[in-house]
Amino acid sequence: MGSNLGFPVIALTVAYDGARFSGFARQINAVTVQQRLEESLAIVLRRPLLIACAGRTDAGVHALGQVVSFPFEGQRPDPEILLKSLNAMTPGIVVSEVRFARPGFSARFDAKRREYRYRLHAGPVAPLFTAHVAWGIKKPLDLDAMRLAAALLVGEHDFRSFCVTNSAIGQRTVRRVETIDIAEEWILGERCLTVRVVGNAFLHSMVRTIVGSLVEVGVGRYEPSWVGEALAARQRDAAGQTAPARGLTLWSVDYPDDVWIDEGNA
Amino acid sequence: MGSNLGFPVIALTVAYDGARFSGFARQINAVTVQQRLEESLAIVLRRPLLIACAGRTDAGVHALGQVVSFPFEGQRPDPEILLKSLNAMTPGIVVSEVRFARPGFSARFDAKRREYRYRLHAGPVAPLFTAHVAWGIKKPLDLDAMRLAAALLVGEHDFRSFCVTNSAIGQRTVRRVETIDIAEEWILGERCLTVRVVGNAFLHSMVRTIVGSLVEVGVGRYEPSWVGEALAARQRDAAGQTAPARGLTLWSVDYPDDVWIDEGNA
Repeated sequence: MGSNLGFPVIALTVAYDGARFSGFARQINAVTVQQRLEESLAIVLRRPLLIACAGRTDAGVHALGQVVSFPFEGQRPDPEILLKSLNAMTPGIVVSEVRFARPGFSARFDAKRREYRYRLHAGPVAPLFTAHVAWGIKKPLDLDAMRLAAALLVGEHDFRSFCVTNSAIGQRTVRRVETIDIAEEWILGERCLTVRVVGNAFLHSMVRTIVGSLVEVGVGRYEPSWVGEALAARQRDAAGQTAPARGLTLWSVDYPDDVWIDEGNA
Repeated sequence: MGSNLGFPVIALTVAYDGARFSGFARQINAVTVQQRLEESLAIVLRRPLLIACAGRTDAGVHALGQVVSFPFEGQRPDPEILLKSLNAMTPGIVVSEVRFARPGFSARFDAKRREYRYRLHAGPVAPLFTAHVAWGIKKPLDLDAMRLAAALLVGEHDFRSFCVTNSAIGQRTVRRVETIDIAEEWILGERCLTVRVVGNAFLHSMVRTIVGSLVEVGVGRYEPSWVGEALAARQRDAAGQTAPARGLTLWSVDYPDDVWIDEGNA
């Protein structure tokens, strides 16, 4: 997109139900969020567009505050009209905000903080109203043990053990996790535990592997210290299972304040 | 069920996703909660059974704390095993509790208080994660006006204007509403308004008609006092629209404490 560097950038905040898409990124023969959004944008803005995103969510992973961006040449569209048009055209995707950013802005590279939330449904019977957004764990979970384990992952670490192996080959696997907290939440009458993970950036399947490992500790299969050993091992099979996609939501993405162009300064 | 009056009664607390059933009550050529539960119970308990319920929910209406009951002759089943068997056999229905009640108990006739919750999704874009459990209202809602209107419905009144007309013919239509409150709740990241309606008993579609009428006030179509006039008119067309089924959940049902038989006293 080097040739577009001089143009202002449009950034959209989007939510989607992960169950309805084969993930964010374009694929052959599969319905993805990127494809649907690019198709709708091409019609509304009358030109082909390629969008960047803050988090390339996998198939089944939801988003509440995903951010996508694309450079836009020409007269700036009315944000209200753009929002309404896109929402009318893309079932399963809700565009909640339209913002304008300075030339060169990328939803991916300018993100300074990403927050994911993973929901566990905790109880002896299966979830009903939260079944599509939570992983049901029937065994009792030891929250104190899970919190002790989570604390071992906070900070700047090599998270090679906590990502899809292939994706780590030749890649830098150091990431900074700022926060992992676990809170009880009643959602639609059902008891859930929400694991909130905040960091600068995440490796492929990193949040789901963190949660899968915390659950192994929660059900008593391992001591909390095992998570520290898994981190130190720097190989995927040292950590726990990858938690199912449906429990995960890309919750929000933060950018520096100075990337936004005031609407009045069009 | 006169011949069963001498037998203890089994009461089940059940939750279900209303979207998966054509309501609670048995019908020809439709899948209902009653049919599914009675089929599963007949297999597990090895006899045909007819169940009573606290609230005959319409097609699309959800339940979190519906209570069903049936007299049971013979050795009392193990509640843990009954619960697990039923949950394994009835997708879309979760049995959360098994209790034993004194002979003659009826989930319908012994209920002293029923609580329904109706969820509105309030915001300019459509709901995504709460779409299956909320009615999306895009216009701004005046909460103060809605609360003033709701207060006019609390108490013992003839609710003929707030029920399906046919169901009121020849029926007593006086009911006692104890509470109607409206609270803002963020559910799965989306702003909802939850209308909680508590009363002794409800007429057919009464909660949905109350909510439909409150929304007419909330969007500014009528003054709060209009709801009082609708109540006084005692005819269905004086009140507002029937709110969609998907926003409604039969939340909980209360019984006198002395109906329950202690498990130890089997």
